[in-house]
Amino acid sequence: MADRAVEKIVAFIDLGTNSIRILVVRLNPNSSYTILTKQKELVRLGDGEFEHGKLLPEAIERTVTVCRKFAELARSFGASEIVAFATSATREAKNRSELLRRLVEEAGIEFGVISGREEARLIYLGVSSGIDLGDQSMLFIDIGGGSTEVGVGDRHRYRILESLKAGAIRMTNLFTSGSESGVVPPENYQEIQRHIRSEGIHAMGRLKGARFDLAYGCSGTIQTLADTTRLLYHPEKAEDNFVLTHTDLQQTVAYLCSLPLEKRRRVPGMVAERADIIIGGAAILDVLMEELAIPGIRISDRSLRDGMLVDYLSRMDGFPHAEPLSVRKRSVIQLGRSCGIDEAHALTVTRLALELFDSAADQKLHTCGAWEREMLEYAAYLHDIGSFISFKGHQIHSQYIIRNADLLGFDQRETGVLALIARYHRKRVPGKKDVLITSFGNRARRAVRVLSALLRYAEHLDRTHAGLVQHARFVNAQNGVVCLQIQCRGDCALEYWAVQSDTGAFKKTFGKSLTVECIQSREP
Amino acid sequence: MADRAVEKIVAFIDLGTNSIRILVVRLNPNSSYTILTKQKELVRLGDGEFEHGKLLPEAIERTVTVCRKFAELARSFGASEIVAFATSATREAKNRSELLRRLVEEAGIEFGVISGREEARLIYLGVSSGIDLGDQSMLFIDIGGGSTEVGVGDRHRYRILESLKAGAIRMTNLFTSGSESGVVPPENYQEIQRHIRSEGIHAMGRLKGARFDLAYGCSGTIQTLADTTRLLYHPEKAEDNFVLTHTDLQQTVAYLCSLPLEKRRRVPGMVAERADIIIGGAAILDVLMEELAIPGIRISDRSLRDGMLVDYLSRMDGFPHAEPLSVRKRSVIQLGRSCGIDEAHALTVTRLALELFDSAADQKLHTCGAWEREMLEYAAYLHDIGSFISFKGHQIHSQYIIRNADLLGFDQRETGVLALIARYHRKRVPGKKDVLITSFGNRARRAVRVLSALLRYAEHLDRTHAGLVQHARFVNAQNGVVCLQIQCRGDCALEYWAVQSDTGAFKKTFGKSLTVECIQSREP
Repeated sequence: MADRAVEKIVAFIDLGTNSIRILVVRLNPNSSYTILTKQKELVRLGDGEFEHGKLLPEAIERTVTVCRKFAELARSFGASEIVAFATSATREAKNRSELLRRLVEEAGIEFGVISGREEARLIYLGVSSGIDLGDQSMLFIDIGGGSTEVGVGDRHRYRILESLKAGAIRMTNLFTSGSESGVVPPENYQEIQRHIRSEGIHAMGRLKGARFDLAYGCSGTIQTLADTTRLLYHPEKAEDNFVLTHTDLQQTVAYLCSLPLEKRRRVPGMVAERADIIIGGAAILDVLMEELAIPGIRISDRSLRDGMLVDYLSRMDGFPHAEPLSVRKRSVIQLGRSCGIDEAHALTVTRLALELFDSAADQKLHTCGAWEREMLEYAAYLHDIGSFISFKGHQIHSQYIIRNADLLGFDQRETGVLALIARYHRKRVPGKKDVLITSFGNRARRAVRVLSALLRYAEHLDRTHAGLVQHARFVNAQNGVVCLQIQCRGDCALEYWAVQSDTGAFKKTFGKSLTVECIQSREP
Repeated sequence: MADRAVEKIVAFIDLGTNSIRILVVRLNPNSSYTILTKQKELVRLGDGEFEHGKLLPEAIERTVTVCRKFAELARSFGASEIVAFATSATREAKNRSELLRRLVEEAGIEFGVISGREEARLIYLGVSSGIDLGDQSMLFIDIGGGSTEVGVGDRHRYRILESLKAGAIRMTNLFTSGSESGVVPPENYQEIQRHIRSEGIHAMGRLKGARFDLAYGCSGTIQTLADTTRLLYHPEKAEDNFVLTHTDLQQTVAYLCSLPLEKRRRVPGMVAERADIIIGGAAILDVLMEELAIPGIRISDRSLRDGMLVDYLSRMDGFPHAEPLSVRKRSVIQLGRSCGIDEAHALTVTRLALELFDSAADQKLHTCGAWEREMLEYAAYLHDIGSFISFKGHQIHSQYIIRNADLLGFDQRETGVLALIARYHRKRVPGKKDVLITSFGNRARRAVRVLSALLRYAEHLDRTHAGLVQHARFVNAQNGVVCLQIQCRGDCALEYWAVQSDTGAFKKTFGKSLTVECIQSREP
């Protein structure tokens, strides 16, 4: 979580399938920001991955080297924080933990792995904040190496976010095994298109229903196709505001397919290192423009890293971008409702859990901060979502759903933490070396243990789901004993008894004994 | 699945936490049946289990011995089929696979393990079919050794089914460690009651909302409490139609608690081997009668095994009990809807899958029967339920939900089979030794492989979710090649292509090559 507005320098790194991008920004105390540098390196992390599901050793090597360089760059600009996300190639690789470990050890960067929909959301933020949409709505397309993000939104918020398992490298790897150097016959190109149509059928179905006024393409693939088309067929037009029409795109594609790789590299506007995968990428754009009836597309130079910046700013207090209800909260509530939770109970438990968190901090039972408090809030809201599958073992079903639900606004480490807090809200209490938390770092491990214990008592305090407990706080921590003071209306014997018969979990987590004191409330 | 009505003898065995019961029945060709024998043995399978989660070796030994005896009994009556279900003690035991394996090897009985709700459903069937309810509704309570089943229904169907983790043995094990032989002080009894209230709070909350005219108790615990009460305080009343009032129950409990075990055994009406656990069981009935405001309860001598018989009959063609929509089907549809599936697509895929199943049988691609066809139908309907968690890997989410959802009318082996058919409907194709199917027997293993392959092609044939394919069947199997003939309306290029690019799965499963032939339909 970002601090209040004081000057600070932050680096944003986006580790894609094709390239790594960095953006270093100075956040000024007056809520403005200054871009210090933007750089990009083509490393082809996903090269060869899509046949066997594993990152190649050379690709890992290249990536670690560039990230080390980028980390130095960030430090040389005085960055005090690096926000780093990895996408499709990392997300899907069986050996991704090896890559992530080396990036921590050798480059000092901890990458969050984000889902395709979260990637689409961040791209939406990047693109939409870069143009003055007025009252118009926009469709955006970002063709990456491994996946393509498409969505629709207006200046206030996104409406649809989709992620297709189709990217320039993936298509090339799948359909041109070894023959990339020759011309691409029409049957081959149609085969690629068919694959994209099939892969994207449901996403495109949802997108077809949406109205949009403008279409924007970002990413190097679309930029290159626009440049080439303009230089080949419309040299008189300016680069700014150039619109790539579907007809022109088809002409360019036919031309590029007719050339062997060596000649393709030298086409005007072509980026030489992209020439081998440009046809795979073009096929994706071609299918999307046809299926979604997009007559022409404009170019945006925004990308994921810009969205990461906007998202970061929106989480800072006092910044003008801050949304009324955060993306995280909205996405958590949406998931809870789609599982049909008892929302009154979820809100009571959330309220009590946060009260316990704050009073526990006062009593020095933990040293957790704002991030942990936020995680507790979401986990408390979601703790029962697994019940709709079956009440028996519902904490395990909650864990499963949270971990797999592609919650927006979180990376996979965070959803992992949320899932485990929910998992441990009843039954088993995790020890320091619990097998499920050993893959996390120290902070996340501690968060799971402390927060799941607090959630456990908040849950006990609404055992009847009747909202009888109005306040609950820890008081008088001394000599290894803490008192949980409960203020309630009516008979809360079951709540009291639930806490009383589970004090062992408190001792195991906080190393202190727990006593309980009940005060009848005069509040209505 | 049962055959058409010809004379046959079937044994039903219910392996509970406290006792094992058997019922042997002759099903007559004229749709009537004759009970040949009913027997019961107290084996205390769950003794000592609820502290450490494991069945004790002595308890397993006793159970295997009695089941071997029961299997002989069934054979001596000429039973051609044994339907056997295990409940709470087996369901929860960590070492249940050891028990189940020994029962197969040493007694020749394959037990299905059923969920608490399924148990409640079968008890409802047993109790409701034993009384003439007219237009009245009924509440039933069955206090077992490990769990208590409670529900409400009328003569047509159940309305509410609940299963509480509270039973006579469980309560005794949890609260009287070692001191069963003495008197039970009031504090102890209240402690047991509090535990039951807490454990059952949500189930009782749902039951409180239901209207019922009559209350029935089954199981030995309630029978014994009624007998004792009648003999102690109402010796003038007849056994038939005796109603155990809540006031009388409390008086009996107070008396039983005041006696040490040795004297308790000799109370009139007491079953001696039950005297040590009767107070744990009485506490459950006491709490339920108070919370659900039940003034008095009648005794039913029906139990799970009777429900198993009724359920068996309802699945036989031509029997008068057959329901318009089977419990299985209703429960499958309910689960699908609660996950918000695209129902039109689910129904299209189900229709096509069954057509493929039938034509594949004609072409001798498999030798599966009615049970497999039924499993395919349900798996096809549910194949996409995981999508609501995340489209990515949704076949795995579908598997998870189906396996854990306590579908009514199925035992756990069957839900396991359904889950795996859904799991393998896309992506990975299971080999004969696939790790996920090795725990099944031969028939279930084969079912998973054959049915998931058929479902895979049915899914391909509705790739666009537009219902374009009207008919699909396998034809002309010869010389290692089979043709899939598709009749469709409109352009089904994506469907065609989806099948074409996945013929490897067919070869792997059926050992034959697949060709595809498309016929344009004139049907509207």
